Order: sequence, then structure tokens, then C-alpha cells
Amino acid sequence: MKPIVEKRKIFRYSDGYLNETEDLVVTEFPVTVKINEQEFVTMVCTPEYIEDMVIGYLASEGIMRKYEDIKEIWVREKEGYVYVKIDNLNPYYQNFQNKRYITSCCGMSRQGFVFVNDALTAKKMKEIRVKISPDDCLRLMSKLQSSATIFQNTGGVHNAALCDVNGFMLCRMDIGRHNALDKIYGYCLKNNISIGNKVIVFSGRISSEILLKVAKIGCEVVLSKSAPTELALELAEELGITTVGFIRNDSFNIYTCPERIQ
Amino acid sequence: MKPIVEKRKIFRYSDGYLNETEDLVVTEFPVTVKINEQEFVTMVCTPEYIEDMVIGYLASEGIMRKYEDIKEIWVREKEGYVYVKIDNLNPYYQNFQNKRYITSCCGMSRQGFVFVNDALTAKKMKEIRVKISPDDCLRLMSKLQSSATIFQNTGGVHNAALCDVNGFMLCRMDIGRHNALDKIYGYCLKNNISIGNKVIVFSGRISSEILLKVAKIGCEVVLSKSAPTELALELAEELGITTVGFIRNDSFNIYTCPERIQ
Repeated sequence: MKPIVEKRKIFRYSDGYLNETEDLVVTEFPVTVKINEQEFVTMVCTPEYIEDMVIGYLASEGIMRKYEDIKEIWVREKEGYVYVKIDNLNPYYQNFQNKRYITSCCGMSRQGFVFVNDALTAKKMKEIRVKISPDDCLRLMSKLQSSATIFQNTGGVHNAALCDVNGFMLCRMDIGRHNALDKIYGYCLKNNISIGNKVIVFSGRISSEILLKVAKIGCEVVLSKSAPTELALELAEELGITTVGFIRNDSFNIYTCPERIQ
Repeated sequence: MKPIVEKRKIFRYSDGYLNETEDLVVTEFPVTVKINEQEFVTMVCTPEYIEDMVIGYLASEGIMRKYEDIKEIWVREKEGYVYVKIDNLNPYYQNFQNKRYITSCCGMSRQGFVFVNDALTAKKMKEIRVKISPDDCLRLMSKLQSSATIFQNTGGVHNAALCDVNGFMLCRMDIGRHNALDKIYGYCLKNNISIGNKVIVFSGRISSEILLKVAKIGCEVVLSKSAPTELALELAEELGITTVGFIRNDSFNIYTCPERIQ
């Protein structure tokens, strides 16, 4: 059974000092659901009560009509698979298989992970083109928060900014975390703005899909007010991206590639 | 152009009194992207910088190889469509069309909205089977927060609890907001627990997919620490669900169907 949190060595910046310490990071566990031998969906979750989650998901999506339609369900946690046998599969189910819907929260097609190989080869950050100081980390996050306070209180939106050492170049907000990043990326592509030496400042949690999006955009450093997940940090190490989390008041945690924070 | 926030009449509970007032609620805008005449994806977003968002999304998903591959892009905001013409479409793109991936954040297949008709007919809450007092709203939220403080600080997970007037029956947490609700729903189905007279207490924002999930589960009341979106509130009114948001310290907002809070 995969643990729901894992211990990690991090660098904690506090009161002007950087110290090596340990931190607990939440895991992100991908589970693929196969219905009647066919792959149906991959869900990323906290690894507990997986069977309940799959039953609840299938019921709320209308895949089965009643609980008794589930003839068998077994969880192979080690392999990350749940096998389900369903009688009376909703006849509409096949029609909707190739429709996709991305909600305000996030949601990403399988592509993200299929293309992770691209990311791993093409966008590995081997060089160090950006260095920022601890003070810059605090200053940029404080600016992100002050520039959006009212709207954040109103609607719980997420904010993202593209910055260089001189400050904000571009700031976008959206009810969807990934959308705020897409709005930045699209603007840069349209206007041919080079991203290599920039930093992303982000109000939301750094999950695996956010980390991958940062990598695809081509940024080396992501600064966040919130926590990263363990899977995001594994990817960040592979890709050579600096992740800084929990930037609050006068402290923060450096999780990966600390050499860019100086 | 749809506004990014809308004004709403709400009931605000504060210092023991309930008053009618106005509140700003963030909109949730669905945009469907068509690539070379084919429907590709529906994204829910804050309605600004939509063209940038679509360009950034297509680039980060690897649908196109370089920005110049976009031959035309036009946004029909009123109809909620973005039309894109792409040369050199990634040849893998078709293969991945029917794979689905649900990230930790949320993400839902098209089903959610296709089946909204089911929800609208089958699960409309015409009766009032649950009534709870303002004090219960505050007490249940306070219990949700205290039961999960450590883990919330660690990992930024979401918590959901199924309650009746006597207190918590079941509490689940997950890095994915919707997963926490699925874990509750699955448990209830397996154990044949009737949900009709229960209340959902939730740490996350009430977006349209969360509201729909609550409706599918069959709950009449959802209490949240965070904000609802405008689209969620429209659905809540249609479905007859009571939504209470921003439950913090000694105050909260009732957005829809206030008759169950007494």
C-alpha cells in the first residue's frame, strides 16, 4: 500500500536563513480503471478507499444504473489498476468515450502523460539560466497576492504570473489553475516572448499536471504559495525544475534543484 | 462578452442574524474548441483571454508543433466556441482522443454535462427532508477543519464529510476534490446507506461539477468553506439544492434554497 504522505529532504528558508530539514509531502497516485477488460479512465488520487472511489465515480457518471450491476471489483494497488465487471453497462457509455470535458478545476486528457516522454527529452532543464534570491521569492509572491486580493476573496480563482528579476511581465487569473498558465503560454507564443529565463509565480498547489505544464512552457523555476505533491517533485527532479512552495510571510520551502535560489 | 463576476442576492448570516444582501460570484464559462471542424474539447474557464488560453492549451498538449501551425483561430464568445485550423496536426492526436485522464484536481468527462438531463429530471429536490440551524452549519464546518488540520497543512488536500444533525457519519479526504465525494458515495452505495436526509460538508470551492456530484449523490444541502461559482448556483436553483458558502468563524452566505437553513 502506497503511503498517503512521504518524507522528503527540503531546504527551508526562514528568518533569513536556509536550512536543510525534512517535510511531509502528499502522494498523488494514478489508478487506471478497466471496465469489462477495456481501459476506461485514469484517476489520480490519494491512495486510500480506492474501491469506494471507483464505485462512487462510476455511479455518479451514470456508467452503471445501480450498485448491483457491479458483478466484480478488485483493486490491484501495486500495479495501479482497478478491474470492474459491470452488467447492464449504460448503452450511451461508448458514445461518450471520445468526448472530453475540462472543468474549472483542471482535468487533463491522457496526452499529458503520453507526452511526458517528450517533456523528459525535449525540455529537460540542463542549464541554469535563471537565479533568483530568497528575497525575490518573497517579493514576487507578495506582489501576486496583493494584485489579486479582491478577486481571490470573491471567487477563489487562481493567479499565475510570468516574471523576470525585474518583476511581473504578465499576470493572469482563472477559476481553472491550468487555464491561468495556458493564458500565459498562449500570449508568449503569439508575441514570440522567450520564456527560458523567466519564472512562474503561482497561487495554486503544484500537482503533477501543473509541473508538467511549467516544463512544457519551458520555465526552470516555479514559485507557489501552496504545497507540491510527491509525484510533481519526482517529475521536477527528472526535468531539472526548481520548485519552491509554501511561500508565506517570510519563509518558504525549496523542494528541488535549490541551486537556482541564491 | 460574459462578465467575469456576477451580482447575486444572497442571505448573509453574521453575529447571529440573517440578512438579505448582495454578493459577487465568479462565472464559469464553458468553451468548446473545434479543430479542423471536429469537436476536440470543452474547457470551463474565466471568460477573458480565451484565445490565448486555447493556443497555450493546444501547445502544451502537443496538438500542434509550433505556433505557426495555427492557420486560423476565431472566438465566437456568444456561442461559446473557438474554431481552430491547424496544419501539421500531430499524427498521434487521433489515437489519444479516446483516452481519459482525471488529475488530482478534478477533470470530468463530457458525461457530466450530457447526463445533466438525468440530474435535472431524476434528482430534482422537490421536498425538504433536511433542515439545519445556522449553528449546525458553523459547528459542522468547524469539525471538518479541526479533524483534518495537520494533513491540510501538509498537503493541501480536500475534505468532505457526510453528516446528519447528530454529526459526522463519514469523513474522507483526497488531493482531488471530486475524489473525496466519490469515496463517500461509493461507501454509501456499498453499505446501502440512505443519503436523502444528509448534508455534505466540503472544504473546497463549489464549482458546477461539484454541485452536480452532490445532486447525483442525492444530497439536498452542501456546506462549504469556499466560494461557489455562478454556474453552480444556477444548477443549484434548477435542482433545488441549498448551497451555503464561505463558512468562516461565525458567518456564512446562503446562496440558494435558504428554506432549509432555520
